[in-house]
Amino acid sequence: MEKLLMGPGPSNLTESVRSALAQPALGHLDPEFLSILDETCDLLRWIFKTDNKMTFPVSATASGGMEAVVMNLVDSTSKVVIGSNGAFSLRAKAMMERQGAEIVEVNFDWGSPVDLNELNLKIDFAKPDLIWMVHGETSTGVLNNIVNIDKGDALLIVDCVTSLGGVNFEMDNWGIDVAVSGSQKCLNVPPGLSPVSFSTRAIERFKASRSWYFDLQMINDYISTAGPRTYHHTAPINMIYALKASLNDIKEHGLDETFNRHKIAAEYLYSALGEMGLKPAVESPFRLPQLTTIFIPKELQGIESQIRKDLMDKFNIEIGAGLGIFAGKVWRVGLMGANATIRNVDTLVNALGKLL
Amino acid sequence: MEKLLMGPGPSNLTESVRSALAQPALGHLDPEFLSILDETCDLLRWIFKTDNKMTFPVSATASGGMEAVVMNLVDSTSKVVIGSNGAFSLRAKAMMERQGAEIVEVNFDWGSPVDLNELNLKIDFAKPDLIWMVHGETSTGVLNNIVNIDKGDALLIVDCVTSLGGVNFEMDNWGIDVAVSGSQKCLNVPPGLSPVSFSTRAIERFKASRSWYFDLQMINDYISTAGPRTYHHTAPINMIYALKASLNDIKEHGLDETFNRHKIAAEYLYSALGEMGLKPAVESPFRLPQLTTIFIPKELQGIESQIRKDLMDKFNIEIGAGLGIFAGKVWRVGLMGANATIRNVDTLVNALGKLL
Repeated sequence: MEKLLMGPGPSNLTESVRSALAQPALGHLDPEFLSILDETCDLLRWIFKTDNKMTFPVSATASGGMEAVVMNLVDSTSKVVIGSNGAFSLRAKAMMERQGAEIVEVNFDWGSPVDLNELNLKIDFAKPDLIWMVHGETSTGVLNNIVNIDKGDALLIVDCVTSLGGVNFEMDNWGIDVAVSGSQKCLNVPPGLSPVSFSTRAIERFKASRSWYFDLQMINDYISTAGPRTYHHTAPINMIYALKASLNDIKEHGLDETFNRHKIAAEYLYSALGEMGLKPAVESPFRLPQLTTIFIPKELQGIESQIRKDLMDKFNIEIGAGLGIFAGKVWRVGLMGANATIRNVDTLVNALGKLL
Repeated sequence: MEKLLMGPGPSNLTESVRSALAQPALGHLDPEFLSILDETCDLLRWIFKTDNKMTFPVSATASGGMEAVVMNLVDSTSKVVIGSNGAFSLRAKAMMERQGAEIVEVNFDWGSPVDLNELNLKIDFAKPDLIWMVHGETSTGVLNNIVNIDKGDALLIVDCVTSLGGVNFEMDNWGIDVAVSGSQKCLNVPPGLSPVSFSTRAIERFKASRSWYFDLQMINDYISTAGPRTYHHTAPINMIYALKASLNDIKEHGLDETFNRHKIAAEYLYSALGEMGLKPAVESPFRLPQLTTIFIPKELQGIESQIRKDLMDKFNIEIGAGLGIFAGKVWRVGLMGANATIRNVDTLVNALGKLL
């Protein structure tokens, strides 16, 4: 029986993704594959809402995509402001510190959003080269506002790993210079690819990449249809098939319908949790529909891992544990991509009801 | 009709690999998945012929695995001797130069093996921290001798991307400290995973990793069964299924039978090429059975890419172009893993015969 993956990702794969994964391999320089790759990059431009030429999936998981961004844009001369309110802003910070960058961390409580008034004041004062924001924080279930950031001369980098495909994201309209996402959240593709996109402004500020594997210019020389497509590393063929299949499915339904389905499923979940006496950890206006953190009641905190284990063993349902300072304090419930349905909420709530 | 991938990789996927890829996803912390991961690492130890605890697939293609090695073992204080006779020793050099290492490149002609007498003299003179060797050079089809290297106090790093699973490789018996391989050659798994293994000696000399994504100690804290399995990045679930399926298949046949099948298919290819007046670019004792470079006769050099295109368009067969200084001068014919059969050689030779 297929497990229902209602944690923070990976989410369940759709039938078309599974079927795409099982297709015969093609060579990474075969025109048939290159045309699949081109379509995939076009679909990524569509879902990112960008015209950026440099838009492609990095051959690594989402953390690898983050690292690719860091390796090409951050060095010991960089000054970075991070709006920090969860584990994934800390991850970005850790990556950039390894390159010797000066980090100005603007901290907010976990479970609260980044306050843009405060962030913008810090940006105005610090005059950074880069601003790093997490759109949907997977550790807390907060949807940060990234629309009204006064970036000034800085590049705005946005981690949309969990947000992409679940809530609206408008790269170009919102003045985002760099976006980095992942395959295994709302796209229902296995972990292993990290869609990224770079504005012309961002590309103009690329540093000499410390990393050969993540050298974005060299990767782009293979991906870009403008040049002779020089071999860099061997593209992860079957994962690209899967990403293309997923994006095609989402496009068929349309983004508005997709976002609405996430919203409806999430609101249904909040209401059902309320009836069970459970409370989301994030205040209503700041909730990320595709990931809900739930306060674990005091009386259950000692047995929270047993409850997750029972959910898995008796009902084949996975939910996520808390991460970082939220460990033992919250559960994380994902309604990601095709998983964002009323039926899945009912299945989970029914099982939880029997266990609690 | 499935294309026959007889280039330098990716190779064709087996049915069991394709079926494994299409299995439902599991969470990266689900004990069911962790047990699959553990089995996969055990199978990697088996095929590397090592007892090294730190043995796992890096979540990237083979070039990413190489970079992981470099990021954890090479910095600006490092001195490295490279036995250099092809594109992939140049790739290793480029990666290590980015870390500021001092590189002593011991050069040999492309198509010739690394001469260990000369290499050992250079090692004795240079007293390097590291020695980098390519076992099976994918750009030239040379199988380098890596058994009699006088490594002294240095660590011996071996790129066995194309050799693993096609010819004998004995990590522990041959005193290899670091091995790095890839999924898409003789393992018949899509590109996207890089099996690596590290001796205790190598681990003791790890530097502070410049890279967060490729920080081998942090990855190992997730992979190792000895500790609490701390989450680092989300493992590429379905690709791991595929790697496990492939290694299980190879184990079922046994390594000796597998190596022998490669040898027989390659010798059959050499003989058939000879009958067509075509000549391998590598002298007989140094040929890598799973990858044969063929000199393109002078009269065909101007139309060599058309011949490859015709092979693809009319016969659904992919062979590889020459790389680097071999571009336009050789074809590369892969007989990798399950593709190493008499029937595949017949299919290719028959098609080539009709075209030439």
